[in-house]
Amino acid sequence: MLLNTNPEENKESKLSPVLQLAQRFNVFFLTKLQSSYALPFIVEGYIVGLIRPDVLNTIKKSPLFKVYSDSIELTPKYGHDYETRSREIEAVINEWRKNKAFVTLNGWRDELYEVRSGFDDPPLLKMERSATCLFGIRQYGVDINGYVHHPTKGLCVWLQKRSITKQTWPGKMDNMVGGGLAVGYSVIETALKESNEEASIPEDLLANLQPVGTVSYFFESERGLFPNTHFVYDLELPLDFVPINQDGEVESFTLVTLQEALDWALAPEFKTTSCPVILDFLVRHGFITPQNEPDFPQLMELLHVPLHSIFKQITIPSSSHQ
Amino acid sequence: MLLNTNPEENKESKLSPVLQLAQRFNVFFLTKLQSSYALPFIVEGYIVGLIRPDVLNTIKKSPLFKVYSDSIELTPKYGHDYETRSREIEAVINEWRKNKAFVTLNGWRDELYEVRSGFDDPPLLKMERSATCLFGIRQYGVDINGYVHHPTKGLCVWLQKRSITKQTWPGKMDNMVGGGLAVGYSVIETALKESNEEASIPEDLLANLQPVGTVSYFFESERGLFPNTHFVYDLELPLDFVPINQDGEVESFTLVTLQEALDWALAPEFKTTSCPVILDFLVRHGFITPQNEPDFPQLMELLHVPLHSIFKQITIPSSSHQ
Repeated sequence: MLLNTNPEENKESKLSPVLQLAQRFNVFFLTKLQSSYALPFIVEGYIVGLIRPDVLNTIKKSPLFKVYSDSIELTPKYGHDYETRSREIEAVINEWRKNKAFVTLNGWRDELYEVRSGFDDPPLLKMERSATCLFGIRQYGVDINGYVHHPTKGLCVWLQKRSITKQTWPGKMDNMVGGGLAVGYSVIETALKESNEEASIPEDLLANLQPVGTVSYFFESERGLFPNTHFVYDLELPLDFVPINQDGEVESFTLVTLQEALDWALAPEFKTTSCPVILDFLVRHGFITPQNEPDFPQLMELLHVPLHSIFKQITIPSSSHQ
Repeated sequence: MLLNTNPEENKESKLSPVLQLAQRFNVFFLTKLQSSYALPFIVEGYIVGLIRPDVLNTIKKSPLFKVYSDSIELTPKYGHDYETRSREIEAVINEWRKNKAFVTLNGWRDELYEVRSGFDDPPLLKMERSATCLFGIRQYGVDINGYVHHPTKGLCVWLQKRSITKQTWPGKMDNMVGGGLAVGYSVIETALKESNEEASIPEDLLANLQPVGTVSYFFESERGLFPNTHFVYDLELPLDFVPINQDGEVESFTLVTLQEALDWALAPEFKTTSCPVILDFLVRHGFITPQNEPDFPQLMELLHVPLHSIFKQITIPSSSHQ
């Protein structure tokens, strides 16, 4: 039975704008995941990422990686502990940065991300944030939807315009507060830290912070692969509260109606990888519904793609490769 | 690279009770989907279901189905229109019922479900509800979480005890209101109809019905395959409202705290395929959180498995099989 390799694109034209957007931030999940385009990246027998052909060409030259026909394995020289793996991969990435081997490393963050199998598994190593997309490492972040019950406009939500100096997506529209899960910070610690740094939200208001789930998607750009999960929080704010940025990462904040928020999400000026969070908000608050979205079930599935099923596979010990 | 075929089961013992439950109602998605255990069921070039070996043995005897090595195709004798397909498959299913070929047909519903590719695609045929699990047809339903802000107990939710005379899951605990999407009823029409029949909810209260998303999972039981999607609604109810059943399908209703609701969902007395809806409710209302559920991202993914990606594949026209 021959199957169309990319059924999604066939009817793209007749898809709703919201579904077309959901397919854009899942371009890798929908079009390349089933192919052998990217090879599993193995650390201590666990699949922790996926590596593209363009990255493979550079990786081949380093003794730190063993390249098999069907996978690429990290083979540290001086030991099999967290610190050794982290140190040896850091050296290679620094070398790549010096040689300008990858465009994503121009956006160097000086921020370390944990590399692990499942979210509840112990980290295997830590890696500079801007390099994780080269290895297709799962990234985790926190997003906060700040909303207001407006007397005349109804439910409204705060959006931010990212600073033009940000390494990624400069000047794009984004959710009120968002940040990646860096080494040493829990989900809730990240939420509280970013709420303060990005929007100066006082502690008494943060007491209303409501965890409401996650969104997950598998995006690809010229920079690399992004199998990302965002922990989502809703936060009802008083009418008179106005977010003020402290860390210079936000140019401005604006309060918009749900229709305006949807229009922004559908516009090219919105950070593509932040769209799942605002779409999820619009669904949970009854603005995008089974009545106005023809393929509502597909939209919901594209807001929660099964990254766990992709990465949570245990391989046999590397020794048996030899 | 050898991969463990069922990574989920390896650490089942160390998984939280909630994740173990999420894996139970996704037993087919997690353990058999990747295998060739079940073959695609093709109608007019579209994959609309999956067929198990036990069903295949019976299907082989009917000229209505063409069995290939990698798929099974519906080949109606008297035409390729909706009515002809529906009529011819109905005849075969009635025959099976008479011969007691399948246990699921003992629970005959006299209720017709649409068979289609994607949710927004035109139906290809209609089929008796109790037979859809033999063909692994996607089923759609509506569930309503009726909740109350209780002055002393906090947020509480109404649960129903299913009538002991129900064809499926008799006497099990379930969500306040739920029903399948039958031929001729839209999602919202089904929600309003079931709210009235199952719980006598007056129109003025139904005005607050809030669509909040869907859950999707792929369950398997001795009866067959269940790739199901539930459209989920939340409905806040006044303290003094008590649901009253009209159609005899509910034995009783009970108002429980969120902790009691979770305890019920984890108990064997709760209808397994209704658990995704109550778990989703507990997540969206901040009771199951990233802080009390170690692998919160995996739980969210198992509440929204990508049925669309499984079924939404277009095959080449059947003619080219010959």
